[in-house]
Amino acid sequence: MKVKVVTQILEANDRIAEENRKLFDKSGVYVINIMSAPGAGKTSLIEKTIKETAKIKIGVIEGDIAGSDDAKRIKSLGIPVVQINTGGACHLDANMIREVIEDFPLKGLDLLIIENVGNLVCPAEFKVGEDIKVMLLSITEGDDKPLKYPLMFQESSALVLNKIDLLPYTNADVGKIKKNSLSLNPKLKIFEVSCKTGEGISKWVKWLQSLIK
Amino acid sequence: MKVKVVTQILEANDRIAEENRKLFDKSGVYVINIMSAPGAGKTSLIEKTIKETAKIKIGVIEGDIAGSDDAKRIKSLGIPVVQINTGGACHLDANMIREVIEDFPLKGLDLLIIENVGNLVCPAEFKVGEDIKVMLLSITEGDDKPLKYPLMFQESSALVLNKIDLLPYTNADVGKIKKNSLSLNPKLKIFEVSCKTGEGISKWVKWLQSLIK
Repeated sequence: MKVKVVTQILEANDRIAEENRKLFDKSGVYVINIMSAPGAGKTSLIEKTIKETAKIKIGVIEGDIAGSDDAKRIKSLGIPVVQINTGGACHLDANMIREVIEDFPLKGLDLLIIENVGNLVCPAEFKVGEDIKVMLLSITEGDDKPLKYPLMFQESSALVLNKIDLLPYTNADVGKIKKNSLSLNPKLKIFEVSCKTGEGISKWVKWLQSLIK
Repeated sequence: MKVKVVTQILEANDRIAEENRKLFDKSGVYVINIMSAPGAGKTSLIEKTIKETAKIKIGVIEGDIAGSDDAKRIKSLGIPVVQINTGGACHLDANMIREVIEDFPLKGLDLLIIENVGNLVCPAEFKVGEDIKVMLLSITEGDDKPLKYPLMFQESSALVLNKIDLLPYTNADVGKIKKNSLSLNPKLKIFEVSCKTGEGISKWVKWLQSLIK
């Protein structure tokens, strides 16, 4: 019974995600769904991306259980942003996105970035209408994460390894992260960045720009 | 309808958690449920705790979506351990614990440590029969986490702030973390530790020992 209910929820979600996707395509906006554990640096990566891509028109949807700190950070950059508070739910779903995009200025945008709730598990299960999923992993989380949280690595098109400036102070083995991530998902694009120092951001931005027509 | 189903699941879970708790009490074992985001250092804290508490008999239940790396780390210390693989589920529930404690040597133990799945959201909603919940936060996750993930801070009896050895290399404000955590939960005990250098571990262990009888 429990499994049946979950299946119905996922089917209904995928149907709405499909409708969102059609609306995005019609509006000519490319959509990425950014996922990670709490504190891996999703908002920082979005800030850096906005600053490095002056010619691309970006909009942002922020997902959090509570609060609007992230939306305020993005708004201060002069970017259209809307904050979704899930009120306890551990991930965004397609219906939450549907509700906010009705009033969002999609038509003027090249790229819509959806920042999911900080969680390395649940967001990977729910499509929201995105073109691609992108995940962040902070190297301070350790090199054992791919094999412990396989679904998110499998569902993502790109893995952004953040906080590489802290590499000298941790025991994390970047080679192991890459090897195990690629064993789960051989097509995964991997970027090593530091949102603090700016290292590696230009490569990530170049790749992102190549996706938008 | 969706809410109703969720309520039923939570009620059934709480009933089983209650039964687990009775069994733990009967066996004279104190039980803590350790929760955090992925990579905050739950297994490292358990390892440090085991090494600092030679006189206390400890057993460990490891919860992960996949893999048994953590259980291997604990087993190498000569401690009884069992690994639960949730196979996708984002948290442990009372029924998973019930299934493994039937064959677990509870009677010889003073303390059972349950390491939950790495997730700052969902584990806080599910009792498993524990005496207290304890959460870890790595300071590399940033100082905005209490207000963004309030439930876990409200449900926990203690907050262990880990990786304070990395404080010089981050922008995290420990004072802000403490203030916002205490605003959510004024009774919260807060410990600052580094599982890497050992700093602060003895205070945490002393407090933990004071709870056991």
